[in-house]
Amino acid sequence: MLGAMGEFDLIARYFTRPTARAALGVGDDCALLQPTPGTQLAISSDMLVEGRHFLPDVDPAALGHKALAVNLSDLAACGATPLAFTLALALPSAEEAWLAPFSRGLLALADAHGCELIGGDTTQGPLTICITVFGEVPVIDGKSQALLRSGARAGDDVYVSGTLGDARLALDTLRGTQVLPPAVFEQARQRLEQPTPRVALGQALRGIASAAIDVSDGFLGDLRHILDASNVGATINTTIATGLMACCTRPDWSNGVISFEQQLSCVLAGGDDYELVFTAAVAARQAVQSASREARTPVTRVGRIERAAGLRLIDSQGKAWPNHYPSFDHFC
Amino acid sequence: MLGAMGEFDLIARYFTRPTARAALGVGDDCALLQPTPGTQLAISSDMLVEGRHFLPDVDPAALGHKALAVNLSDLAACGATPLAFTLALALPSAEEAWLAPFSRGLLALADAHGCELIGGDTTQGPLTICITVFGEVPVIDGKSQALLRSGARAGDDVYVSGTLGDARLALDTLRGTQVLPPAVFEQARQRLEQPTPRVALGQALRGIASAAIDVSDGFLGDLRHILDASNVGATINTTIATGLMACCTRPDWSNGVISFEQQLSCVLAGGDDYELVFTAAVAARQAVQSASREARTPVTRVGRIERAAGLRLIDSQGKAWPNHYPSFDHFC
Repeated sequence: MLGAMGEFDLIARYFTRPTARAALGVGDDCALLQPTPGTQLAISSDMLVEGRHFLPDVDPAALGHKALAVNLSDLAACGATPLAFTLALALPSAEEAWLAPFSRGLLALADAHGCELIGGDTTQGPLTICITVFGEVPVIDGKSQALLRSGARAGDDVYVSGTLGDARLALDTLRGTQVLPPAVFEQARQRLEQPTPRVALGQALRGIASAAIDVSDGFLGDLRHILDASNVGATINTTIATGLMACCTRPDWSNGVISFEQQLSCVLAGGDDYELVFTAAVAARQAVQSASREARTPVTRVGRIERAAGLRLIDSQGKAWPNHYPSFDHFC
Repeated sequence: MLGAMGEFDLIARYFTRPTARAALGVGDDCALLQPTPGTQLAISSDMLVEGRHFLPDVDPAALGHKALAVNLSDLAACGATPLAFTLALALPSAEEAWLAPFSRGLLALADAHGCELIGGDTTQGPLTICITVFGEVPVIDGKSQALLRSGARAGDDVYVSGTLGDARLALDTLRGTQVLPPAVFEQARQRLEQPTPRVALGQALRGIASAAIDVSDGFLGDLRHILDASNVGATINTTIATGLMACCTRPDWSNGVISFEQQLSCVLAGGDDYELVFTAAVAARQAVQSASREARTPVTRVGRIERAAGLRLIDSQGKAWPNHYPSFDHFC
């Protein structure tokens, strides 16, 4: 409660819209959702805390986008089709100057994915955003089509979507440990503050990828979750560093400004990328490329799943490269 | 993230258990839930912030109970059968001395209602608990059996379950504005800190109650949501005050210790009761009593729905009583 009328006014003004898919939306004790027969519901919940997941001066519209994007990214990693979400919001005070752009950024991304806001809660407190998102996954012949972390098999290829490492470059710049030309910084900052959840790719990979996860803590850290869940190991080629950072491929910016080692660190362990890491059988290479085209999302083959446990890095000559990359620490 | 390994250790130790109903629980990008064919999913989300919804020194086990109870209470108000929930938790630090009793209190109530923890998030931040709960409501002949706020009709009776006002008496005592004998305080405090969600009653009232809501902000304030959604008014009899506060009916404690006016204020506007307020046609009085017996939850008839808008109070002689009771302000 933000003071009795305050809360209800807020909800009505910024977050209530006619429902489309839901049987009942904002404004009763519960929202009602009727899943399509023959589907499973995929559910994910993420909490974003000021000072930890975002900086206090972040653009509220970008924050609204990101708060939903990180949740849609979990649906993408599952191959689920977005349906709806709930929003619980703790706010120090109800400021129109913050709420208007926040809800605009949030609902624009929601609309782009046909994912409707069906309920939630607002309260006074330190700025905290908790979104729970719902998607659908088909069940075919009794078998769920959800992409899990546990399906990677020795011999599978390892892929990553889009680009990696730019978000970290922006964060380092905001923290003052990196200096970037303004145009480069803007590009990197866009990736940090308004990531693109790979929802279409996740759906296109159903029945093709053997395992998937989204990159929130860093490529290596998140890949490790696939390896642990699948009881396998992997070797990743460090040559990926030179192509995967979008900033470093700009024709107007020299790659030499940041070292290969820094690029590699950003790509492998930068975090906050919200790309998909996934595995697929070698026999599925053409299918993966078709899915990539269908989803208009580039994918890069970066390594191989192996029977031997552990995560190994090799250089362009196939020699071992030290793996000393920690997981992303957000804003701690 | 509570520091990469910190988070995963925590989740594994306190919050991961084998799934029963869910197709996939904690540990992947999404949880997977397969709703029963022919049902709707009821969804509710509540956020509890330290200092606002609970005091910093509250017993963690009681807090775990309450955090889920307020969400189950929303399912109860909808007539839904609990299925599962997600938990997002911001914590200043990962203390076993807090996490162990918190998870124990939370999961004990979850087990009592067959409601399983299927996913969530943990992060560092000011203590904040966000639970999203899922329940099922049957759909019969294309008609949802969910209890809504909007179904009250002129002539319907108004009922309330259990007792009202004791939670507020405990809160006033904790705030130092009330003094209670220890045994009375313990009884009242139990109601404040470990409310009983009326889940069985809500289900038993499907097809009987015309509208329902749970009492979180206070009886009158929450009843007003029914009146607004149903476009009706109501008259409530103030004589309810003398019977509805459990503390005031103790044989070992004199009612005279707190005035009738204070009792009435606690009952009508105390808040944090998590009882159900519901309406039902006069013709359904026997059915309401059967539902009450079936759910082993007492209900009291407290007033009448009327065509004329507004919420009127009358005394035992039927004379108008001033309605100057504000909604509950939690801890603001």
